[in-house]
Amino acid sequence: MNWNLPHKWRIACFLLAAFFLAAPAKAQLQSFPRQDLIDYTAQNPFERLPDGRPKVPDALLDRARGLSSEDIWATLQEKGFNNQFADGFVLAHPGKTLVGRAFTVQFMPLRPDVNDEAQAKAKIHGIEGLKNQTAIDMLQPGDVLVVDMFGKKVDGTVVGDNLFYYIMVATHGGGLVVDGAVRDLEGIAQIDMPAYFRATDPTPIGNVMLTGINVPIRIGGAMVMPGDLVVGDREGVYFIPPQLAKEVLDRADEIHIHDEWTKKKFAEGKYKSSEIYSSPKDPALKKEYQEYLQKRLDEIHKQQTQK
Amino acid sequence: MNWNLPHKWRIACFLLAAFFLAAPAKAQLQSFPRQDLIDYTAQNPFERLPDGRPKVPDALLDRARGLSSEDIWATLQEKGFNNQFADGFVLAHPGKTLVGRAFTVQFMPLRPDVNDEAQAKAKIHGIEGLKNQTAIDMLQPGDVLVVDMFGKKVDGTVVGDNLFYYIMVATHGGGLVVDGAVRDLEGIAQIDMPAYFRATDPTPIGNVMLTGINVPIRIGGAMVMPGDLVVGDREGVYFIPPQLAKEVLDRADEIHIHDEWTKKKFAEGKYKSSEIYSSPKDPALKKEYQEYLQKRLDEIHKQQTQK
Amino acid sequence: MNWNLPHKWRIACFLLAAFFLAAPAKAQLQSFPRQDLIDYTAQNPFERLPDGRPKVPDALLDRARGLSSEDIWATLQEKGFNNQFADGFVLAHPGKTLVGRAFTVQFMPLRPDVNDEAQAKAKIHGIEGLKNQTAIDMLQPGDVLVVDMFGKKVDGTVVGDNLFYYIMVATHGGGLVVDGAVRDLEGIAQIDMPAYFRATDPTPIGNVMLTGINVPIRIGGAMVMPGDLVVGDREGVYFIPPQLAKEVLDRADEIHIHDEWTKKKFAEGKYKSSEIYSSPKDPALKKEYQEYLQKRLDEIHKQQTQK
Amino acid sequence: MNWNLPHKWRIACFLLAAFFLAAPAKAQLQSFPRQDLIDYTAQNPFERLPDGRPKVPDALLDRARGLSSEDIWATLQEKGFNNQFADGFVLAHPGKTLVGRAFTVQFMPLRPDVNDEAQAKAKIHGIEGLKNQTAIDMLQPGDVLVVDMFGKKVDGTVVGDNLFYYIMVATHGGGLVVDGAVRDLEGIAQIDMPAYFRATDPTPIGNVMLTGINVPIRIGGAMVMPGDLVVGDREGVYFIPPQLAKEVLDRADEIHIHDEWTKKKFAEGKYKSSEIYSSPKDPALKKEYQEYLQKRLDEIHKQQTQK
Amino acid sequence: MNWNLPHKWRIACFLLAAFFLAAPAKAQLQSFPRQDLIDYTAQNPFERLPDGRPKVPDALLDRARGLSSEDIWATLQEKGFNNQFADGFVLAHPGKTLVGRAFTVQFMPLRPDVNDEAQAKAKIHGIEGLKNQTAIDMLQPGDVLVVDMFGKKVDGTVVGDNLFYYIMVATHGGGLVVDGAVRDLEGIAQIDMPAYFRATDPTPIGNVMLTGINVPIRIGGAMVMPGDLVVGDREGVYFIPPQLAKEVLDRADEIHIHDEWTKKKFAEGKYKSSEIYSSPKDPALKKEYQEYLQKRLDEIHKQQTQK
Amino acid sequence: MNWNLPHKWRIACFLLAAFFLAAPAKAQLQSFPRQDLIDYTAQNPFERLPDGRPKVPDALLDRARGLSSEDIWATLQEKGFNNQFADGFVLAHPGKTLVGRAFTVQFMPLRPDVNDEAQAKAKIHGIEGLKNQTAIDMLQPGDVLVVDMFGKKVDGTVVGDNLFYYIMVATHGGGLVVDGAVRDLEGIAQIDMPAYFRATDPTPIGNVMLTGINVPIRIGGAMVMPGDLVVGDREGVYFIPPQLAKEVLDRADEIHIHDEWTKKKFAEGKYKSSEIYSSPKDPALKKEYQEYLQKRLDEIHKQQTQK
Repeated sequence: MNWNLPHKWRIACFLLAAFFLAAPAKAQLQSFPRQDLIDYTAQNPFERLPDGRPKVPDALLDRARGLSSEDIWATLQEKGFNNQFADGFVLAHPGKTLVGRAFTVQFMPLRPDVNDEAQAKAKIHGIEGLKNQTAIDMLQPGDVLVVDMFGKKVDGTVVGDNLFYYIMVATHGGGLVVDGAVRDLEGIAQIDMPAYFRATDPTPIGNVMLTGINVPIRIGGAMVMPGDLVVGDREGVYFIPPQLAKEVLDRADEIHIHDEWTKKKFAEGKYKSSEIYSSPKDPALKKEYQEYLQKRLDEIHKQQTQK
Repeated sequence: MNWNLPHKWRIACFLLAAFFLAAPAKAQLQSFPRQDLIDYTAQNPFERLPDGRPKVPDALLDRARGLSSEDIWATLQEKGFNNQFADGFVLAHPGKTLVGRAFTVQFMPLRPDVNDEAQAKAKIHGIEGLKNQTAIDMLQPGDVLVVDMFGKKVDGTVVGDNLFYYIMVATHGGGLVVDGAVRDLEGIAQIDMPAYFRATDPTPIGNVMLTGINVPIRIGGAMVMPGDLVVGDREGVYFIPPQLAKEVLDRADEIHIHDEWTKKKFAEGKYKSSEIYSSPKDPALKKEYQEYLQKRLDEIHKQQTQK
Repeated sequence: MNWNLPHKWRIACFLLAAFFLAAPAKAQLQSFPRQDLIDYTAQNPFERLPDGRPKVPDALLDRARGLSSEDIWATLQEKGFNNQFADGFVLAHPGKTLVGRAFTVQFMPLRPDVNDEAQAKAKIHGIEGLKNQTAIDMLQPGDVLVVDMFGKKVDGTVVGDNLFYYIMVATHGGGLVVDGAVRDLEGIAQIDMPAYFRATDPTPIGNVMLTGINVPIRIGGAMVMPGDLVVGDREGVYFIPPQLAKEVLDRADEIHIHDEWTKKKFAEGKYKSSEIYSSPKDPALKKEYQEYLQKRLDEIHKQQTQK
Repeated sequence: MNWNLPHKWRIACFLLAAFFLAAPAKAQLQSFPRQDLIDYTAQNPFERLPDGRPKVPDALLDRARGLSSEDIWATLQEKGFNNQFADGFVLAHPGKTLVGRAFTVQFMPLRPDVNDEAQAKAKIHGIEGLKNQTAIDMLQPGDVLVVDMFGKKVDGTVVGDNLFYYIMVATHGGGLVVDGAVRDLEGIAQIDMPAYFRATDPTPIGNVMLTGINVPIRIGGAMVMPGDLVVGDREGVYFIPPQLAKEVLDRADEIHIHDEWTKKKFAEGKYKSSEIYSSPKDPALKKEYQEYLQKRLDEIHKQQTQK
Repeated sequence: MNWNLPHKWRIACFLLAAFFLAAPAKAQLQSFPRQDLIDYTAQNPFERLPDGRPKVPDALLDRARGLSSEDIWATLQEKGFNNQFADGFVLAHPGKTLVGRAFTVQFMPLRPDVNDEAQAKAKIHGIEGLKNQTAIDMLQPGDVLVVDMFGKKVDGTVVGDNLFYYIMVATHGGGLVVDGAVRDLEGIAQIDMPAYFRATDPTPIGNVMLTGINVPIRIGGAMVMPGDLVVGDREGVYFIPPQLAKEVLDRADEIHIHDEWTKKKFAEGKYKSSEIYSSPKDPALKKEYQEYLQKRLDEIHKQQTQK
Repeated sequence: MNWNLPHKWRIACFLLAAFFLAAPAKAQLQSFPRQDLIDYTAQNPFERLPDGRPKVPDALLDRARGLSSEDIWATLQEKGFNNQFADGFVLAHPGKTLVGRAFTVQFMPLRPDVNDEAQAKAKIHGIEGLKNQTAIDMLQPGDVLVVDMFGKKVDGTVVGDNLFYYIMVATHGGGLVVDGAVRDLEGIAQIDMPAYFRATDPTPIGNVMLTGINVPIRIGGAMVMPGDLVVGDREGVYFIPPQLAKEVLDRADEIHIHDEWTKKKFAEGKYKSSEIYSSPKDPALKKEYQEYLQKRLDEIHKQQTQK
């Protein structure tokens, strides 16, 4: 598959997206106007996507593929962000890191009176049938679809393998996180995109209504804002506020070097763990580590610059 | 306690409420403007409260005290409302029916960047410290406080016995439903107001932020709109759309008469259950029942008119 | 209510039951012919009910009202019956002992092809609509309705308050055990009959089919045969094979006297627990206990004879 | 291993099976006479096995290896069969489809009086020791052993690796579904036969009794009849009534072609998902799809005919 | 019952206890010598019991009967004691406060080789049969028996109604907390002593061994030391280190007065909750509260002194 | 990595261990003096490690790599050891057998007063900061670290990938069993050492205190003594008392030959399972099996002797 679409098509995408974006904001039950999104993510240091979401740069997304949950924990807890992690998921492809920008969607239990009104409002804005595909069609390269399906299993299958495949194409392999279910697990197992879900079920989506696109949502005990940097590993998923992305990544570089060096020393079989970890006690070892850290950081920075 | 406040005080309440109501709508993360509330509850056949919520009349609230879950189920499922019931709660006072108008509140896991912005916005609108009391201070007589605390136990205690007592005073004994916890259970057990919660914990509320007042929320698998008629019994809680309130109550009258007659016949010990229930097979019995039903309905209507 | 029906009516009941009994045996999916029932309960020392079930005598039922789970455990485990207890129920009336003869009913998930055939067979035998009431209408005084509803909650409500009331009348207050749900808990709470269930739900029974009446069933980890002596207390429910009923009751008399004496001695405050319990160490105490036991047993036997 | 046994041996198998089949039917607690089996599966359009079970033809079993849960769901729900799916299993070999004819077995908690009688009856019919192997020895090529062990873990291990291996040989790799446990997981992991179970445990089977062979059973929320077409994938297991087997398979062919085409279009990267899925909006695309569907169906039918 | 034993008997008790205490310390698997107990509870400001446990004075026990979980939480969290609370229990008598000094007992799964050795060691120290009664016989007035039975239900029943009654006599109504089960719930329900347990079961204690008496134990997530002040209410149980007992109680007095005043003001119906709670904003009200607090504290202190 | 350290280094290890071992025994809350360890494992037939633990010989460890749970169950239940198995773990490397000598560690919820005292005592014995590494630094080749972290997930992560790597080096690939969590699962997944844990979490260890090293501990329902032979397979973990190790292994040899022969006969496709399993009925087959068993046992013994 070709992720590098021609420039012209990209512009078309942009315009199309802009059109789609305007409409649902007015049509959906949980409205979260563009200005609100911008206000509540005011600390974002990066550009924004056409829909107003912070755009964590592609280069940082690339670096984030090396992250694990523990790399992220250190920075986030220091900054007082203790509710950005969710776990307890089934993983479609353990070992494949999930990285992307959060595209959030909220569903609620179907309620005919409210849904009729929402569909009527949507129709006025040119949307026939407000549903999961309304949101899916808005996905951009680099996005991770993050869906609050309130843990629903039966009828709570946000996608099957066809739309799963579409998401892979549209997000360039971004990924899916759903506090709910998927169907067609046999098909999904063949498609190489990271996915986190609570359950699988043979039923298609039903008895729910789409209530928000790119609104603040909750996934388990985590608070997710549109545009968050989403990183998932075997343990679970972190939703990193954009303003912390760079700091997380820089700190992770140090953690990786630290672990590299620590294991090297352990492999020598000459030290008790506490002589080396979490930091070397002996001044000579301390110095050795500091030099190693500096050398490797330099290498990494050089590498990053060259990209 | 005197629920019948003097007229003057009522007006003051009204004005105060109006003031409070305007502010949070703009300050909260999940905004749900007054017009949206009116649009999405357009089928409401009753007056509205100053804050825009449908006002199910006091007379209907009184009648609703005789409802049980099964009375409600029949009408709601017929109309396609299958997601208006929530159960699995601990009850503070089993046997005491919960009845009132839904005043909804939403909390989410604390996220400093978003919360700081929300608090700043609140301050601009004159609210110092957006928190549980911001919502609680807006409660009206006849309200039931319905809180989405996302099932949180530790730090998820929306009130202790002091605020529980306040709610009883402010709502005239309305009640509380929280998908989360309360604290001070010993104290709450002494206060005669129906309450439904998931758990208790000695910790006070913390690590959460208030994100919406009188916005659409989810309680378990139920979809709750501000102004819904809330009815709770030993089994759980129903959130009845206002436009269905009258129909539910009328049908319940018939169900009660049916059950009354059915049990009378069973008590005679002359019939197999299927001869009487769910409806009598024998034409004579059928007639007897129809006459009984009519007579009792007449009595009830007379009684209702006299009130 | 008058449990003592006139003799004539009793005969009518008997004949009616016999009619009903013959039919379903042939109509139901899980057939368990009368001869099988008799073969598999061949150790029954008592008369049989018209439907072939062992009839634990009324006098023993009366005595059984004094039993608790622990009284029963001792005899049953000694005889190698380790799977006759089920717990984990919600109790409608804790503190009210459940006693009666097991009338078993089995439901299974609805399957149209099988159900159509079963209904057709039932019709041939004169039964219109094979369903919960088919079984309920066959209940006799002294019965406890024991229902395998495979733990189903939604749509798994074997009865609401109307049929619950009927069961009380028909069984003379026998009781209900259902590995499934009931509805109308508010109504049931007003009716003075012991009941054990897994859950409550506002939905009526549905999406299931009746597959057996008075067939061997499983309730949790317990194996229940029609005619078992059912005894329930705050802890759970025992299903006692009729051939062990007398032995259980006799042993319980001794246990009660033992506990009576033990507590009396403890109340004196002069002994360490191990001097008295489980049996007194001191020869003088041993003798005192033996005499007490004999005296009380004599009193009990006299009392039982006088009844 | 050679699944294609010589003809002579097959006849011997048949006769042996017939002998075994007659006996247990009379010996087991839950009797389900051959005529009942035939009556309750009267809609079966295929031949029957010697034991009376519908025999879904081998050619359909082969086609069924391409099925996934979602392929089956569509047809079954349309026909009103909503209780034919069970999930929540541990899979021995995820990714290996389970296909075969249901051979059902029911166990219940051991009860000495009933078991003694059952063993005595079995002995009269020439069976020494009614137990798991009584049923296992009756398995035929193409069978899947489906066991109701009521979710039991400790002592609820229907087989270890030896009998697991035997089942593979006897059923020609058919498979095992048990609402209970297996032991010897290390050994089972080496044997290439699909298996679905709730748990593993080191204890051997015990404290249970065999109560039915080829009787209707319940697995989770599913109703299983002997001879059902069993299909299991990563999500769970479907028990398909034989009369629906062909329709399920034909519809699955269309679903597969639809998904194939849908993904091809998505891969082109030119369409929003709703333009293509669930059906193409544009008339030209609609036509393209219809032609593709027809062409592929023709190919498949040709292929099926050639086999 | 007479809790006030004559002085002579008390001395006998003391001596007996001393004898018993010395022996098990040496006989039990988890040894915790008297000196260790004293070292690890060195901050205890009170006298000690003969067995070395801190002896929170009877006067403080009396005051503690007015405590609720929330009163305790405030002081403990301030001091960094976050693991002294356990909940999730079944309560024998909700509404009856549990208060006493922790007498801890630890059981572990039976292991014949270790148990044989322990029994042999016990015999050397004059204890025949190390078991639950070994510990129970050592209970003193004012004790609460706190048992780590590792959550065991079947065979994990530390006492039935006989020993439960004994504990009531021996501890003068102290109470029981067991991370495990009790049996004879019907009997226990008649005995007026607070008790907290995880489950009930008809089996007697078995398949376990006594491994420690008055050793540090864990109950759920709480760390319990012998001699801790145990306080239980409807929410759960707190294990308060003796050195914090007085501070907890003094602070609770203030909390109670605060809540009293707060509710009085709320009852007036003139204030929004935030004007009064958690502390009054208006200087006049602040003063009013301060005066009220002082007056009531004075009353309480006078009352305490008079006792 | 080189597991075969030079002799000199081994002696150093020994001395260092001896030093470390003496200290913590006195410093830890749960003291278990060397003499106690020796007393309670008096049946150990092998040498002891410097710390007093039984030393199951390396040759037996090697043979144990062929064990599965079922091989062990047979011998242990026969000897009355029914509480030596724990399951319900997540496995880092399913299919990789865990074998080694139990090195036990106990943590409890942090309690500042007790922990301060423990740290002070540790300091006196030369240990700065009693914590997980205090124990980890004492690990010997052939050890399996077995940790009672009372099922804690958040803050209950006994190691991350760095210390996990250290354990692999120090124990020569022995392994880890923790009734609690690990962190850095991504890193751990790359390190080839068997590990059993309840959960993973990004938090580091915290809010706990080390209370015992090489003391008797409980893991789930299993009782673990220091020096037990630990064997883990896909099903769970067995803790085998050293005195039973040889018998378990010898019996396992027979079980393996039995299973080998049984499967060979099944593969021939000529027998019903009950003709062969669990033992052959036919005298000729019986003889064939006996000869096969003898021949294979001889081969195995020869092989074992040659090593």
